[in-house]
Amino acid sequence: MPGHKQHGPIRVALLGCGTVGTEVVRLLTEQADDLTARVGAPIELAGIAVRKPNKHREVPADLLTTDAEALVASDVDVVIEVIGGIEPTRTLLRKALEGGKSVVTANKALLAEHSAELFEAADASGADLYFEAAVAGAIPLLRPLRESLAGDRITRVMGIVNGTTNFILSGMTSTGSSYAETLEEATRLGYAEADPTADVDGYDAASKAAILASLAFHSRVTASDVHREGIASVSAADIAAAKGLGRVVKLLAICERVEVDGTESIAVRVHPAMIPVAHPLASVNGAFNAVFVEADAAGEMMFYGQGAGGAPTASAVLGDLVAAARNRVGGGHGPRESAYAALPVRPMGQTPTRYHISLDVADRPGVLSQVAAVFAEHDVSIAAVRQEGRVDDAGLVVVTHAATDAALRSTVDKISGLPVVREVVSVMRVEGEET
Amino acid sequence: MPGHKQHGPIRVALLGCGTVGTEVVRLLTEQADDLTARVGAPIELAGIAVRKPNKHREVPADLLTTDAEALVASDVDVVIEVIGGIEPTRTLLRKALEGGKSVVTANKALLAEHSAELFEAADASGADLYFEAAVAGAIPLLRPLRESLAGDRITRVMGIVNGTTNFILSGMTSTGSSYAETLEEATRLGYAEADPTADVDGYDAASKAAILASLAFHSRVTASDVHREGIASVSAADIAAAKGLGRVVKLLAICERVEVDGTESIAVRVHPAMIPVAHPLASVNGAFNAVFVEADAAGEMMFYGQGAGGAPTASAVLGDLVAAARNRVGGGHGPRESAYAALPVRPMGQTPTRYHISLDVADRPGVLSQVAAVFAEHDVSIAAVRQEGRVDDAGLVVVTHAATDAALRSTVDKISGLPVVREVVSVMRVEGEET
Repeated sequence: MPGHKQHGPIRVALLGCGTVGTEVVRLLTEQADDLTARVGAPIELAGIAVRKPNKHREVPADLLTTDAEALVASDVDVVIEVIGGIEPTRTLLRKALEGGKSVVTANKALLAEHSAELFEAADASGADLYFEAAVAGAIPLLRPLRESLAGDRITRVMGIVNGTTNFILSGMTSTGSSYAETLEEATRLGYAEADPTADVDGYDAASKAAILASLAFHSRVTASDVHREGIASVSAADIAAAKGLGRVVKLLAICERVEVDGTESIAVRVHPAMIPVAHPLASVNGAFNAVFVEADAAGEMMFYGQGAGGAPTASAVLGDLVAAARNRVGGGHGPRESAYAALPVRPMGQTPTRYHISLDVADRPGVLSQVAAVFAEHDVSIAAVRQEGRVDDAGLVVVTHAATDAALRSTVDKISGLPVVREVVSVMRVEGEET
Repeated sequence: MPGHKQHGPIRVALLGCGTVGTEVVRLLTEQADDLTARVGAPIELAGIAVRKPNKHREVPADLLTTDAEALVASDVDVVIEVIGGIEPTRTLLRKALEGGKSVVTANKALLAEHSAELFEAADASGADLYFEAAVAGAIPLLRPLRESLAGDRITRVMGIVNGTTNFILSGMTSTGSSYAETLEEATRLGYAEADPTADVDGYDAASKAAILASLAFHSRVTASDVHREGIASVSAADIAAAKGLGRVVKLLAICERVEVDGTESIAVRVHPAMIPVAHPLASVNGAFNAVFVEADAAGEMMFYGQGAGGAPTASAVLGDLVAAARNRVGGGHGPRESAYAALPVRPMGQTPTRYHISLDVADRPGVLSQVAAVFAEHDVSIAAVRQEGRVDDAGLVVVTHAATDAALRSTVDKISGLPVVREVVSVMRVEGEET
C-alpha cells in the first residue's frame, strides 16, 4: 500500500508439518513478495512444531522444533494449526488465544466440539479465530456464510463435504460394485485412509455439519447434536433403486431451519440420501465437494471445489492468515462467535424427511392396499408408487411425502413384518426436491 | 455479544429506492433484531434519497428526501448507494468517503471506471468501500476473491455474469429461434429492458469483468481495458454448430493471467464462446449467474446463484452493510484497494484464444488442403477437422489450437475470400477445455 508506513513482520508459528503444513511452508516461501504486498507487512515463519524433526527434510531445519508449547508462547502474532486431533491441540490453541495470538486452524473435530471455549478466549484477548480450511477445503464457504450472508436469513445448507465417501459412492454408481469392493479400490488409490472410520461412518461430515449449522443459524451446535449415519450400509441395491428413479445416492450434510407451530428449531444430520440427477449436487463426483445454500433474500447458491488435499487446504489456511495478518497491521478483528439465536436442535425422530422404500412383495391382489394401510396408520402420506410384476413376486416402490423420521421408521418396521412383504430391498431418504 | 457494552446505533443513508432499495428497506425492518445481534449495535435508517418522494409509498414517508447531498453530509455512518449511473453518484460517494462514511454500493459501471479515486478517498479517511452486489448479485464472489483467496495465486476467472444475455442464449439453444425473436420474447417477459443495449452489447458484463480482474490480479483494470463483444451477432447457425459439436454458446467474462516469455500480463474479455456441454458453466441456464475460478493452490472452484433481482442484490448489500457496521463497532476496516501487481492488460489481438470455424465449401478434392494451407500460413495449428459431403457442396468444421486472436482473425479473413469457400457459416471462440 503506497503511502503507508511499513509495518514490522507478522511472525507465524506453524503447528504440524504433514501434507497441509508442507504446502503452507511452500506457499509462504514462493509467494512471500505477494503476501507482503497484500498484508502490508512481511510474513515471517518463526517456527514449525513437529514430533520428529528428522522426518521433515523439505522445510528449513533451523525452524523445526519439538516444543510446540514453547513455540506458541514465543513472540509470534499468528498460530497456524494443522496437527488435528483434540489434545494437545485444544490446550495449545487456547493458550495461544489467551496470549493474544490469532489462530488459523483446519481442525474440524476440535471446532465441532470446543469452538465456544476457543471463541471465548479469542474474544477476551482480542485475537482472531479463523477456520475456513476446516470445512470443504479450498472452497470459500465459511467466510461467505459468516460475512457475505450476514444480512440474510439462511434457511438451509446442504452439501457433499466428504471426498472419500463421495468417491466411493460415485464409484458404486458408475460400476454397480458393492460398498466393500469400492472401498478397497478407494484405499488402494489413496482416496480412503487405512482406517476409514472417520470418513465412511460420517464422523468427518458430522463435524463439518456442526460447524456449518453454528455459522448459518447463529447457534452453538456440536458434533454430538448431529444425527449421523455413514455409507457402510449403502448397498448395490440402493444404488440401483436410485438409478431406476432418476436419482443418485450421495452422503449429505444437511442443516436446516424447521418451524413447527411458530417455533423455530434446527435439524442437523448426515446420512446417505437419493437426490434427483438434475440437482446441482448430483453431478459432483469423485473427491470434489459442493455445498448448496438457501437464504430468504439471496435464494439458492452453490459453492463447488476441491474439498481436501495439501494445496487446496493450504490455500484456505493462507487466506485466513492474510486476514489475521491484515487485522494486526490495520487494527480491528475478524468476526466473533455469533450464537445469539441459540436455536434448539431438533431430535432426528422429530425431523421432517422423506423416504424411498423399495420392497419385494408377493404378486397378488391386495398387496398395495395392505402396504398403503400401514402408511396411513402412521400418518405418512404417499407421494408416488410404482409396481412391477415379475415371475412369482413383484417390486413395489414407494416414495413418501415429508413426515417425521420416527413415523417413517415405524412405518418401515411394520411393513417389513407384513407377510406379503418378502424383502425390504432398499430404504433411503430422499432430498433435493419439493416435498 | 454478551458481556460487551452496547454500541450506539449505526446510522445509514440509502441513496435510491428502486427494486433493490425497496428490498433493502424491507430487510432492514424485518431483520432488525437479528442485524442488531450480528452487528453489536442497532442499524438505524436515517434517510432515503429519491427523486420523486410521492412515488415511494412502500417506505416510511418521513425518511424520504430529495436532497441526497444533504443526506450524505448528515450524521450517518454508512451510505448505501443503489441509484446507479456515474453522476451525481460518483461525487456523492466521494464526498461520503472523504467525510469518513463507509460506502456500500452495487454500482458496477461506476466501480469499473472510478474505483481508484473512491478507494483513495476511503483510504485517506479510514472509511470502508464494499461492493459485493456489483458483480453476480447475491453470489458471494468478491469477498472470496479479495479475502478467502488472498493467500493464493488466481490464474483465471471465467463466468456468466449477465442474466439477460444468458436467458436469451438459453432460449435460442432450446428453441432454435433467432436472436431477434428471442430478445423480443425476453423483453415481453421482463428479462430484458426496453433498451437492452447495456446487456446485449456486453457493457454490463465488461464492467463486471473489469472489477473481477482488478481483484483477482491485484491490478487496476477499467471497463475500457476490456475487449467487449455482445450477443447480437450470435446466429441460429452458431447455436446449431455448437450443438453439433457437443457445445453450447454462452456470453463469457474471462479474466486470465497470460505469461509470454516470462512476462506476466492479463487478458480481460467479454464475448460469446462455445463451451463443452459437460463444463460446469454449460448447465447454468436462464437468469442464473455462475463464476468459475482457478487458482494455483486451490484448484478449480465454482460459485453459482442468482445474479440479479431486488432481493438477491439486497442480500449482498446487507452483507456488506453488516461488515461495514461491524468495523464501526469493533474497530478496524475492510480490505483496501490492492493494485500493487500493476500487471499490464494485453490487447485482444495478442491474447491467445481458440476458434471454431464452420464453412460451406465446394465438394471437390483439394478443398481441405487449400483451407489448411491458410491456417499453416498464419501459424495457426488445427486441433480437429470435420468434413461432411452434401449434394453439391460440403460442410467443413475446423477447431483450432490456441493462437493469438489477431492470427485467428486474419486466417478467417483470408479463408472467407477463398473461391472454394461458399459461405462462412459460423465463427466462434472456444473456451473451457484444454488447448
